Amino acid sequence: MAIKVAINGYGTIGKRVADAVSLQDDMRLVGASLTKPSFKAVRAAEEGYDIYVPAGQEKAFGGMKIKGSISEMIGACDLVVDASPEGVGEQNRALYRKAGKKAIFQGGEEHELVQASFNANANYDAAKGKDFVRVVSCNTTGLCRTLNALKPFGIENAYAVIVRRGADPGDSKTGPINAIIPETHIPSHHGADVQTVIPNLPIVTAAVKVPTTIMHVHVISVRLKRQAAEKDILGAFESENRVMVVESGMGLKSTAEIMELARDMGRKRSDLYEIAVWKESVNVKKGVVYFMQAVHQESGVVPENIDAIRAMFSLADREKSISKTNKTMGIR
Amino acid sequence: MAIKVAINGYGTIGKRVADAVSLQDDMRLVGASLTKPSFKAVRAAEEGYDIYVPAGQEKAFGGMKIKGSISEMIGACDLVVDASPEGVGEQNRALYRKAGKKAIFQGGEEHELVQASFNANANYDAAKGKDFVRVVSCNTTGLCRTLNALKPFGIENAYAVIVRRGADPGDSKTGPINAIIPETHIPSHHGADVQTVIPNLPIVTAAVKVPTTIMHVHVISVRLKRQAAEKDILGAFESENRVMVVESGMGLKSTAEIMELARDMGRKRSDLYEIAVWKESVNVKKGVVYFMQAVHQESGVVPENIDAIRAMFSLADREKSISKTNKTMGIR
Amino acid sequence: MAIKVAINGYGTIGKRVADAVSLQDDMRLVGASLTKPSFKAVRAAEEGYDIYVPAGQEKAFGGMKIKGSISEMIGACDLVVDASPEGVGEQNRALYRKAGKKAIFQGGEEHELVQASFNANANYDAAKGKDFVRVVSCNTTGLCRTLNALKPFGIENAYAVIVRRGADPGDSKTGPINAIIPETHIPSHHGADVQTVIPNLPIVTAAVKVPTTIMHVHVISVRLKRQAAEKDILGAFESENRVMVVESGMGLKSTAEIMELARDMGRKRSDLYEIAVWKESVNVKKGVVYFMQAVHQESGVVPENIDAIRAMFSLADREKSISKTNKTMGIR
Amino acid sequence: MAIKVAINGYGTIGKRVADAVSLQDDMRLVGASLTKPSFKAVRAAEEGYDIYVPAGQEKAFGGMKIKGSISEMIGACDLVVDASPEGVGEQNRALYRKAGKKAIFQGGEEHELVQASFNANANYDAAKGKDFVRVVSCNTTGLCRTLNALKPFGIENAYAVIVRRGADPGDSKTGPINAIIPETHIPSHHGADVQTVIPNLPIVTAAVKVPTTIMHVHVISVRLKRQAAEKDILGAFESENRVMVVESGMGLKSTAEIMELARDMGRKRSDLYEIAVWKESVNVKKGVVYFMQAVHQESGVVPENIDAIRAMFSLADREKSISKTNKTMGIR
Repeated sequence: MAIKVAINGYGTIGKRVADAVSLQDDMRLVGASLTKPSFKAVRAAEEGYDIYVPAGQEKAFGGMKIKGSISEMIGACDLVVDASPEGVGEQNRALYRKAGKKAIFQGGEEHELVQASFNANANYDAAKGKDFVRVVSCNTTGLCRTLNALKPFGIENAYAVIVRRGADPGDSKTGPINAIIPETHIPSHHGADVQTVIPNLPIVTAAVKVPTTIMHVHVISVRLKRQAAEKDILGAFESENRVMVVESGMGLKSTAEIMELARDMGRKRSDLYEIAVWKESVNVKKGVVYFMQAVHQESGVVPENIDAIRAMFSLADREKSISKTNKTMGIR
Repeated sequence: MAIKVAINGYGTIGKRVADAVSLQDDMRLVGASLTKPSFKAVRAAEEGYDIYVPAGQEKAFGGMKIKGSISEMIGACDLVVDASPEGVGEQNRALYRKAGKKAIFQGGEEHELVQASFNANANYDAAKGKDFVRVVSCNTTGLCRTLNALKPFGIENAYAVIVRRGADPGDSKTGPINAIIPETHIPSHHGADVQTVIPNLPIVTAAVKVPTTIMHVHVISVRLKRQAAEKDILGAFESENRVMVVESGMGLKSTAEIMELARDMGRKRSDLYEIAVWKESVNVKKGVVYFMQAVHQESGVVPENIDAIRAMFSLADREKSISKTNKTMGIR
Repeated sequence: MAIKVAINGYGTIGKRVADAVSLQDDMRLVGASLTKPSFKAVRAAEEGYDIYVPAGQEKAFGGMKIKGSISEMIGACDLVVDASPEGVGEQNRALYRKAGKKAIFQGGEEHELVQASFNANANYDAAKGKDFVRVVSCNTTGLCRTLNALKPFGIENAYAVIVRRGADPGDSKTGPINAIIPETHIPSHHGADVQTVIPNLPIVTAAVKVPTTIMHVHVISVRLKRQAAEKDILGAFESENRVMVVESGMGLKSTAEIMELARDMGRKRSDLYEIAVWKESVNVKKGVVYFMQAVHQESGVVPENIDAIRAMFSLADREKSISKTNKTMGIR
Repeated sequence: MAIKVAINGYGTIGKRVADAVSLQDDMRLVGASLTKPSFKAVRAAEEGYDIYVPAGQEKAFGGMKIKGSISEMIGACDLVVDASPEGVGEQNRALYRKAGKKAIFQGGEEHELVQASFNANANYDAAKGKDFVRVVSCNTTGLCRTLNALKPFGIENAYAVIVRRGADPGDSKTGPINAIIPETHIPSHHGADVQTVIPNLPIVTAAVKVPTTIMHVHVISVRLKRQAAEKDILGAFESENRVMVVESGMGLKSTAEIMELARDMGRKRSDLYEIAVWKESVNVKKGVVYFMQAVHQESGVVPENIDAIRAMFSLADREKSISKTNKTMGIR
């Protein structure tokens, strides 16, 4: 029988997970919660999704058909994907616990909130049978995937400089317009976050924020324990799930052209679920492999949410879940 | 029998028209020309499109399957959609003429090159039976659509300030990064370009370029001959083909949120074929209607190319062609 | 005897007016107020300005030398230039009134707060002897200057589309990064604001916000009562106070190059007090003059504050004050 | 007797070096060359600088007073500061050699062109008595200064990720508007460039380009041979010439606020000759010091050009030259 999934928070992540759940034959979308009447609510209705709103707020949604309250939505599901704004997930957990429902939180919440932080490539089994799981952020997901690919070579230590996009494409309020903003605390939190998925991995990260909306870029260096040539590294990336090797020499010179490729690929919202590693950037010097990768901040974690649901209900093992998620979402 | 259409130039416009032609049952895509091996060529092949390249250039495309030369492509079609870079269309016309083929050019080419400049809303019949037709640019198309909607009120004169995007989303070379660039010649060419479609329309335009990639915005004022209330104007826009009224109050506060809506709508490449008019911006003061509209520069002209093909072969009258194009492309 | 001037709010405008007051021999800077210890406070101290802080907040400023409380600053001056954040000026007015001090407010405050809204070119005498005066915003100041220059030709009506910068150069929080944001209400408030300075001027304005930090651009059209050639208009602009005609053909193609020129001119903070009108943009068609101008949002109103002080104390007539301000500030 | 200095190329670097030479009592500015009549030429004339143009081009400069040809300028000087566009310096060297003149080239030229690559902090003496010297680029200069400060701690190895500005503030052509562009070749050329100044320094660099105009940011990690606490490192930076420690906690949160501080400091063109290191970013973990620094790409190398001139003519030793340059240019 299909797992009944509710989406609490229909923003950047929530709306994508809703679509992805709808594509699965072992899951059923109960509906999604919205707190304000906006074009997003209208779109959810046009998708045919049942809409739930805070109790007593139905009138604010004018003529829109409202299915029920958020509590009712929680009551009607087996699992909640909590995609509410950063920090709100923590407050919601009490509700889910009280209702006896499993829940997935997103990377904006703390690891301490859950029983396992999750990345399908790196620690699928850690979520098995758990009630509260956290899908790590897009940046952490990106690092987990490619570092997982490098595991066979032995990781002595890893260092990543994260060049973050300043705001999402649909956000017209947040800046900067013309500045580079350092996260002056080094190490940044991303390294510790990777360790919630891959314990004991020696990794340090640092981050800056820049005026672009479309992707993060990671500049990564990894000291390997075993010798590896560039073609070995590329081979590892090419075989890794949800990692994609792209060539600058084929016109994919920046995040702009990579997202253009994503648009040409024709997925909904022009999303790119894969981490894109620039082929030319893979360079091995004196035992250190250097590479650069681009992360589509809005969509990279969406297939991870689907796999996490399967793991939490033991619906499938790692290989089978990943393969099923990829097939339904068009990931190669 | 289906009209055989070749696409000469597989860039921003060409690749979209190729997809749109593929959706029509009265047209057949012969293939598309490419001059360089790049991710665009790979994508075209993955779409299953036959690829044609300049004679003698096959080797540069490595292992890719090449169908033939560009001349062969021209020979094999009934009509060429010329989507080559600005100014190149002029040189190509001689080839098409020599081969005895009809051709459609894009808005970057001069009106003098063709027998009719075209916009489906405003002058569909002008292209009927013609050999060389030009689909006007995205900005001109946007102006033609909404001004066509206002025709019933009588246009005493129209004035539009065009705030242009600086580069397309897939372009990482062109700026400005932090400047507003005026087109210091006023009137800008856009007004005269509208007149190639709607002769004798008294219109003046001025333009500036700004550091954004996603849409143009037009700030328009039209002195009407007949009295009209805001609701009349909105009604006219709502009934006009490929015009869409959007509400800032529903969260569509800028071009960022409008393109986010387009992404949510799920069309390929997250395109928005419709001109979006902000409802709140429609204001009538002392006989002048003011309004602001956003134009998706990459896709607005794509359905126009399809309609132009039908007009040139007299495959269908205006209503029928527009309706068929809209239905196949998912335009409401 | 020199007028004692206090600056309440040491931000974008306040710090500039403090410097400008220091250059005048008929004024004396009492000091400036700051609410937080930051690099701005350090700079103020390095300039040798006396610093006043909210009563009881001295400790927050660590080792910095604090002269006294804001109330003490108000008590010690003849006039306060209120450069506090938008909306705060209204609350401050009661303090100034109670202390029996004159005050100047900035364009973010309402006209209703004051006895006169002010622009030196257009209505210097309106501020004469007044207690509460408001220097209109940078956009309104820009419009007042060039429209004042056109008065001799008779203004039948004026229309301006204002392309606003999204944030100031020193602001790393505000966006948009990649969007055009319309002010959907047309007319925008700027037109009515011009009328607080030039009553009965028939003017309509509309505005959009774009991702740039360095200047606003106005696209203006004015129907004239009397015939005028382009050279007449240019002549009027060239003779107008604090208006500067620039040539795109001399490399000043955008706001970027105009601000580069300002940097080369060597004024503090690379400010440009003058409104820059692009020579090539001045075009007369059928009785309408079209032109485009760029407004440096941070500094354009600074000399206006100085002139307003002189007017309020009847220290000098219009010509003399403007000439003195210009000379001391290096305005040609 | 004062050294006669000519500036060949009056762009971003050239115009600044011209101003800096004018401030020195042991140098005399012969003049500057310009190839096109533009606002830059007008400004040079207004500064009172003699203008030289390519022979036969005088007429193109209209009414401007031209002193002579570029060859005449070369003939009249003791040393040429070549600030021509990247790559042109190489062609010019033959002219300087033929005329028997010393010359300084900028960082866009190859090290192989000169006898020494130069940074005042790190290798002043290397330029002593030389005829052809190259002042390394702004990025290399920034790295040389702070790495020079760390020398006493012993540098085991250094790694820097360079987040480059996409274009200069006065450039309205170059992008990207919305993308991150990797330099896919790792190591980037900057590391090898540092080694032209500090031979045998084990350093690797990688670089990306982002849509901002105001500063580069370096994310640096250095493994030290000797133990050092954060306060030791900060002390070293604070004592290093032309390095400035800034606090994010004092409002200097990004490159935007740092350049705002530079504007408040009142130097011409709001330049910042110092490398700004964020205090909070200095973190020592397991023998590695991490820090982030911002580099004003337009002005950082200007004092270096002045010092290079002194070194080449043995006018002063390192300490004396640096101190004199700093004093005249207002560098603390």
